[in-house]
Amino acid sequence: MKIALDAMGGDHGPMVTVKGAVAAVKEYGVHMILTGDEGLITEELKKYDFPKEQIEIVHCTEAIENEDKPVAAIRKKKDSSMVVALNLVKDGKADAVISAGNTGALLAGGLFVLGRIPGIDRPALAPPYPTAKGISILIDGGANADCKPRNFLEFGLMGSIYAERVLNKEKPRVCLVNIGTEEGKGNDTTKEAYKALKKAPYNFIGNVEARDIPAGYADVIVCDGFTGNVVLKLTEGVAGVIFKVLKDEFTSSTVRKLGAMLLKSGLKGFKKRFDYTEYGGAPFLGVQGILIKAHGSSNDNAVKNAIRQAKILIENKVIQEIANEIESLGDDTN
Amino acid sequence: MKIALDAMGGDHGPMVTVKGAVAAVKEYGVHMILTGDEGLITEELKKYDFPKEQIEIVHCTEAIENEDKPVAAIRKKKDSSMVVALNLVKDGKADAVISAGNTGALLAGGLFVLGRIPGIDRPALAPPYPTAKGISILIDGGANADCKPRNFLEFGLMGSIYAERVLNKEKPRVCLVNIGTEEGKGNDTTKEAYKALKKAPYNFIGNVEARDIPAGYADVIVCDGFTGNVVLKLTEGVAGVIFKVLKDEFTSSTVRKLGAMLLKSGLKGFKKRFDYTEYGGAPFLGVQGILIKAHGSSNDNAVKNAIRQAKILIENKVIQEIANEIESLGDDTN
Repeated sequence: MKIALDAMGGDHGPMVTVKGAVAAVKEYGVHMILTGDEGLITEELKKYDFPKEQIEIVHCTEAIENEDKPVAAIRKKKDSSMVVALNLVKDGKADAVISAGNTGALLAGGLFVLGRIPGIDRPALAPPYPTAKGISILIDGGANADCKPRNFLEFGLMGSIYAERVLNKEKPRVCLVNIGTEEGKGNDTTKEAYKALKKAPYNFIGNVEARDIPAGYADVIVCDGFTGNVVLKLTEGVAGVIFKVLKDEFTSSTVRKLGAMLLKSGLKGFKKRFDYTEYGGAPFLGVQGILIKAHGSSNDNAVKNAIRQAKILIENKVIQEIANEIESLGDDTN
Repeated sequence: MKIALDAMGGDHGPMVTVKGAVAAVKEYGVHMILTGDEGLITEELKKYDFPKEQIEIVHCTEAIENEDKPVAAIRKKKDSSMVVALNLVKDGKADAVISAGNTGALLAGGLFVLGRIPGIDRPALAPPYPTAKGISILIDGGANADCKPRNFLEFGLMGSIYAERVLNKEKPRVCLVNIGTEEGKGNDTTKEAYKALKKAPYNFIGNVEARDIPAGYADVIVCDGFTGNVVLKLTEGVAGVIFKVLKDEFTSSTVRKLGAMLLKSGLKGFKKRFDYTEYGGAPFLGVQGILIKAHGSSNDNAVKNAIRQAKILIENKVIQEIANEIESLGDDTN
């Protein structure tokens, strides 16, 4: 099993990607192919002790920056660490590709270089969403701002397969994010989406109101990319403000500081439950190959966990399963 | 100043509405008109000591239930506490109306009984949104699931007037909820909305990503009713889960319980900052009169604060100001 990693991607570049790759090699026994500046990568690799034959470097002369225009960057920077990593999968030299780089470019690269699975109209980002009951998956996390009913139907299928094979959920509960629980509620888009999902060959159980998402009501949270982006970022924003205000309150007097000290392990356990670095990245489902977008600010632990996630996707043949099951949706491409 | 209150509305009915009204009469010196079952209301009033001439009862034989179909309920239940309260404003016998009852019915009632301010295409719900920097206002909170550019333009105007006159913000920062900060980002709806808002005669400062809403980046958070509903309910859901998990962690051992005890006042101060009962209800802006939707689960404190809010809306002539300023948007009703 070979996994390609865009070593230049992310806010911290090789310093973090290489460390994560080394940890994954030791822990999971995977074979890594690091794409990027050979000098920088070699320099980082020198810091660690690991089975040399399991990490390979493919030197690239370019890197895609966060400021680059996605489509133009993919088209022009042919020797960038991201495009080269994508090509490794396309050419059958790697079984999966991971990048923490420019999201737009990576999605464009997934579409242009890997291409779509036949029958899939719109591939979608499927980030993990931590809930009170464990990890759910949200799809689409931001790849398609405007969606047709057919797209929702595909999101539900891909999410369901992912939840079953990667998150080990039995008959995953697939829900549509909507305003109201009954059929007939919603805006024009979700009303139509509901009609399509009702006939889905997987476990669609109806609408989920945003209030019930964090409680873990749905295993697969289906929505368009606009709503998905709002849900993900608002969750992050609300949690961030609550932690900040709690910290202020908990350090505002000596007595409170003492109280906070006694609660330290509790606070840690709490933070860990909502720590995205534990859950890997967001797979871009629907393209011809395993492609994982890791968070731009990923640390080495997040990179390591994205590699573990790629391994599970490979072992459980998620792409093949999507390709097999897509026919069950029928031919209706509206 | 007379304020009509639907005494039968909300999960707890007269038990809570009457208590809130009595507190408001004593604290703010307002005159209240309570609509509903005279027997029940009188029974509740007997529990309190207050200036009798300041609370009036208008007996009604019907009440609109949460399960009632909104439009049908307003049309058929002419002698319901909600419709009677709305008519008091329409007939000039009250300066504002408050209800914690069926939201859909109240919005329909606002449109049918009070009617729209000339020039306003779509009235909108404008609930308070507590942020790290204080209270912002979100508009539309759920009245209009699908919106045209003109609607966003109106929401921004009404929200801006409200933020200035009720929340005392100077040159309120009006933002469009979107996925990305730059112009040109978004789905079809928000791209068009941005173009309209760019020319607005108030302080439109651009897009706000959902992540930055809780931090208080925007004073007036503009979005369609679908997105608004998702933002409000998800905020509630995320905060609820975090408190629940914290509580579990903080009570899982004796040492932690001791720590939590020392932090009790801190936790209380924290909860108060995010307690909706402190901030009143959601005004339905754009109708011909002051109409406030209080939370269905309002306690007496929430009712009292909604009455205070109505008083501020009356004193600061918010409706007149909207009517005056609507012309500044021009005639474009697309």
